[in-house]
Amino acid sequence: MSDQGEIAPLFLEERHTKNTIVLHRLKRVLYSGRTRYQRVDVVEMFDYGLSLVLDGQIQSTAADEWIYHETLVHPAMVTHPKPVDVLLIGGGEGATAREILRHNTVRSLTMIDIDQEVIELCKRLLGEFHQGSFDNPRLRLVIGDGRAVLDAQPDNSLDVIVVDATDPIEGGPAALLYTREFYEIVRRKLRGDGVMVTQATSTFYSADCYASVYRTIKSVFGNAYAYYVWVPSFTSAWGFVLATRRGSPRELGEEEVRKRLEERSVSGLRYYSPELHRALFILPAYLNEALEQRGRIVTDDSPVFIPI
Amino acid sequence: MSDQGEIAPLFLEERHTKNTIVLHRLKRVLYSGRTRYQRVDVVEMFDYGLSLVLDGQIQSTAADEWIYHETLVHPAMVTHPKPVDVLLIGGGEGATAREILRHNTVRSLTMIDIDQEVIELCKRLLGEFHQGSFDNPRLRLVIGDGRAVLDAQPDNSLDVIVVDATDPIEGGPAALLYTREFYEIVRRKLRGDGVMVTQATSTFYSADCYASVYRTIKSVFGNAYAYYVWVPSFTSAWGFVLATRRGSPRELGEEEVRKRLEERSVSGLRYYSPELHRALFILPAYLNEALEQRGRIVTDDSPVFIPI
Amino acid sequence: MSDQGEIAPLFLEERHTKNTIVLHRLKRVLYSGRTRYQRVDVVEMFDYGLSLVLDGQIQSTAADEWIYHETLVHPAMVTHPKPVDVLLIGGGEGATAREILRHNTVRSLTMIDIDQEVIELCKRLLGEFHQGSFDNPRLRLVIGDGRAVLDAQPDNSLDVIVVDATDPIEGGPAALLYTREFYEIVRRKLRGDGVMVTQATSTFYSADCYASVYRTIKSVFGNAYAYYVWVPSFTSAWGFVLATRRGSPRELGEEEVRKRLEERSVSGLRYYSPELHRALFILPAYLNEALEQRGRIVTDDSPVFIPI
Amino acid sequence: MSDQGEIAPLFLEERHTKNTIVLHRLKRVLYSGRTRYQRVDVVEMFDYGLSLVLDGQIQSTAADEWIYHETLVHPAMVTHPKPVDVLLIGGGEGATAREILRHNTVRSLTMIDIDQEVIELCKRLLGEFHQGSFDNPRLRLVIGDGRAVLDAQPDNSLDVIVVDATDPIEGGPAALLYTREFYEIVRRKLRGDGVMVTQATSTFYSADCYASVYRTIKSVFGNAYAYYVWVPSFTSAWGFVLATRRGSPRELGEEEVRKRLEERSVSGLRYYSPELHRALFILPAYLNEALEQRGRIVTDDSPVFIPI
Repeated sequence: MSDQGEIAPLFLEERHTKNTIVLHRLKRVLYSGRTRYQRVDVVEMFDYGLSLVLDGQIQSTAADEWIYHETLVHPAMVTHPKPVDVLLIGGGEGATAREILRHNTVRSLTMIDIDQEVIELCKRLLGEFHQGSFDNPRLRLVIGDGRAVLDAQPDNSLDVIVVDATDPIEGGPAALLYTREFYEIVRRKLRGDGVMVTQATSTFYSADCYASVYRTIKSVFGNAYAYYVWVPSFTSAWGFVLATRRGSPRELGEEEVRKRLEERSVSGLRYYSPELHRALFILPAYLNEALEQRGRIVTDDSPVFIPI
Repeated sequence: MSDQGEIAPLFLEERHTKNTIVLHRLKRVLYSGRTRYQRVDVVEMFDYGLSLVLDGQIQSTAADEWIYHETLVHPAMVTHPKPVDVLLIGGGEGATAREILRHNTVRSLTMIDIDQEVIELCKRLLGEFHQGSFDNPRLRLVIGDGRAVLDAQPDNSLDVIVVDATDPIEGGPAALLYTREFYEIVRRKLRGDGVMVTQATSTFYSADCYASVYRTIKSVFGNAYAYYVWVPSFTSAWGFVLATRRGSPRELGEEEVRKRLEERSVSGLRYYSPELHRALFILPAYLNEALEQRGRIVTDDSPVFIPI
Repeated sequence: MSDQGEIAPLFLEERHTKNTIVLHRLKRVLYSGRTRYQRVDVVEMFDYGLSLVLDGQIQSTAADEWIYHETLVHPAMVTHPKPVDVLLIGGGEGATAREILRHNTVRSLTMIDIDQEVIELCKRLLGEFHQGSFDNPRLRLVIGDGRAVLDAQPDNSLDVIVVDATDPIEGGPAALLYTREFYEIVRRKLRGDGVMVTQATSTFYSADCYASVYRTIKSVFGNAYAYYVWVPSFTSAWGFVLATRRGSPRELGEEEVRKRLEERSVSGLRYYSPELHRALFILPAYLNEALEQRGRIVTDDSPVFIPI
Repeated sequence: MSDQGEIAPLFLEERHTKNTIVLHRLKRVLYSGRTRYQRVDVVEMFDYGLSLVLDGQIQSTAADEWIYHETLVHPAMVTHPKPVDVLLIGGGEGATAREILRHNTVRSLTMIDIDQEVIELCKRLLGEFHQGSFDNPRLRLVIGDGRAVLDAQPDNSLDVIVVDATDPIEGGPAALLYTREFYEIVRRKLRGDGVMVTQATSTFYSADCYASVYRTIKSVFGNAYAYYVWVPSFTSAWGFVLATRRGSPRELGEEEVRKRLEERSVSGLRYYSPELHRALFILPAYLNEALEQRGRIVTDDSPVFIPI
């Protein structure tokens, strides 16, 4: 997997908690700096290749970004019968947009990111991730506060909303993208078949946070479908929550998923598959229990944070 | 999750590779030593509680040993229509035995471990894990080489064989429990409905090793069913391979699994469930591809090792 | 220096600051716990052997405790023309007492330590350090607050006072052993030829703290003699400050030091020597400058802390 | 000392041995790469500022490079009554040259470094270190093998030779700069008052190496003067060995050193001083003993290496 013999003294430290710390040996550091919003490091790891790190948290790596991005995007896109107008908050690498744009039903994708400097860095350094999606004419990039820009959209105007923000940390830019008030805006902007999905932090290290996001979304939409995926470079499983204005992703069988992907000319997937779609939503017993019993309704007044 | 404010300067280092290293902060160290076969550390982690570590690799922790042990044991046990005589290689903590013995069809469980000192330590320090299974009259504990003891059993005498050995590392005690010659012995000892299962190392950090184990078992049994589970304290997903003399675990629907568990009075599971059984065997696209295309047949002459 | 090939996954982490962190690989952990006053770890390091660690800071190791203890004790003891009554605060390992008791002029050594549990652990586990000094009939061990016990001594009753406390950290037991009010007590208890010495933290990582201790002692005694020694296991140089009621350690030539050591039958020293005595007090230019220009007078109301 | 609150996930790992490892938190990485000869990292540390790292070993940092460079250079330069022609092997940062050129007696300094890429990086990124010394008309820079270039000089043509090479590691570029054959060349090139000095690795982590260098030089010159200095960023004391064709650095008193520095207009020193000169050569008892009793004569056939 790696040139293990080489002397290479640089490491990236990622903390799950104060007590579980991962060190990633680096080949080189392409960029380190602080934008108006966050610390940014673009590094090349021995085991995971090129990586984007925001405020010390790995966002995605060349080795497995497709695991995360396919799993974030396709269950929601497939659950919608015909996604035309899509909105994305976050996803600065351009890889979430890349996956959304695979669906040829999409006519417009509004991508909102708060941090212009991160976007510029990703455009310049992470071509391997965005694969030109920033130049796709169907993409409209807006630099601004995701919540404010979403709020300014007409009601009932979107088919799918994807929230790919950084984790909620104190002082970070994303805390108000995980609250009841935010999800109420999301729901209002969706059309009748509308679907939303959000990343929801680690299922283990921030299990309470994951459960709180789940519970808060459920309180707004009346339903919520939790699923997760193990992302190697995160050294953790990662949680997601999907919700719909009506219908359920669990109703779609393997054949229907295959049909939708084919109709939309979605091909070249490496993680997600028709066979996998329904299995994603079958959780182990303890996680079902945690989601139902832990957590709380998150509000703007009382946001939730991950425990680092 | 943890008393994060406390000063606590001890860490356990676990290496996935030379380039991905995890540090676990420790409350205390209950035991450190070297047996005839391996380095043993019994520690209490802040994030995972009491833990057994062999040759620097975490074997199981109080926080999530049930994730690993339930997933290792129950798919194989349930796949067999009526497991009566079971043999287990490894599993020194006694937790694998604990899960096997939940099935009241089991009349005899032969557990073989090479390292008496580890067994004694586990009996004494890890009551939370074995929960008395060492005292279960259906359990027969044999100290010895797992392969030799298995080879000495009559042919066609076992219903399920579970291999819960340490990872294959150079100089470690387990390298010859992952070879074609070994699996040929396993197959010969199984009765006509017999099922085997083995842990098969990390699906990512030792993907080639995982694929090789899969391919080697498939070459012996004519079939092999790979599955995996994310174990938080391993900071990785863990691979397993199940094989049968006839039949497939994928044929068992949710209702049949529920019926078998109920008939055998298996209750109190926290991870495995009837709903989950079939989903476990649905792998992401890339893993299906890796298992079919990577790896090689492993033989006694040319064993496989994990890359640390 | 070490069995480098052996797998040994335990580390002690010592932080100089949040940005300079040292990891020491451990053979084993003999004890970990929390007394009423502090976290205690007794460990065996590969590179330094048996070690006492309090609140995450290495106090002394078998490999080099004599460097620290000889350098703390002998300059002060030798500077005094005839030390008979000596008082020691801290030094729980018993090694500071061991060095003091080498001087056969000493009739009584009062050793005060706040933490009975640490003393008991050291007696039991660190025989290599104390070498029986706890059983020396000239030693009187008092468990209690060092400052309070010292304050209860008669004025003008002591020849040498050695302060071997832990570093001043917030919430730690030693902060009030580095203030002007404390040093005023020290001075009052010394006889006319009296000498005091204290450890004074790292000369680099806590240079301001070192300078403050120096300046505070100088303000009380009218003189202060800074010196330091590099202690390998501290991965830092360590500072000391000596002060006298009259006279200066810099006035003692090599021959006079040799004569005093011989008269008192002090032998077997591994670090300190007559030739070295005066050289110890010759500091590099930057350290002279730092001591004179940095730091402040430390008071009970405004204690100083090291920056971890 | 540092902005401790900032999230900054990059670290430099420096290994003293496999068992003592130091992690330095980084603000940023200015360069990482591999030249023909070695791995090069130029980083900015929180605690030590800008730093040059070769093959994972810190060469010098802004915070304390003057401690190392003054101590390497001035004892030898001052010991020589009038250094005119000086030769330097290594010292790519330009800071060793900077210190040599402070002595206005120097008419020519030949600096030889094997690694042109390192020199170019230092010129470009480490102005703080070389302070323009590369542009000094008295400096002649030669890219080449230090030993070969030295060997090509006329015999009896140099006053001072300074060896500031990297540590001897297997496969590294410097192993043959620490052997008897090399020191024989050095001696032959020196004039009758000639003085040489070399860095000699850590006094603790590579004590055998230090003693071997000392012993080897002594065998060639008939004398050798060991001294050392604690360099904070090395988290270790660093050894040096000085030798002369005749005379001893220990004969120079404080006044003579002051006079020589003044005559040569050497000013602005931060570490070395007339008072310190003689004290530098007074070693603790254990180090005197180690130097006399450990180590061996190093030859080209049997080089010495540090234990990493």
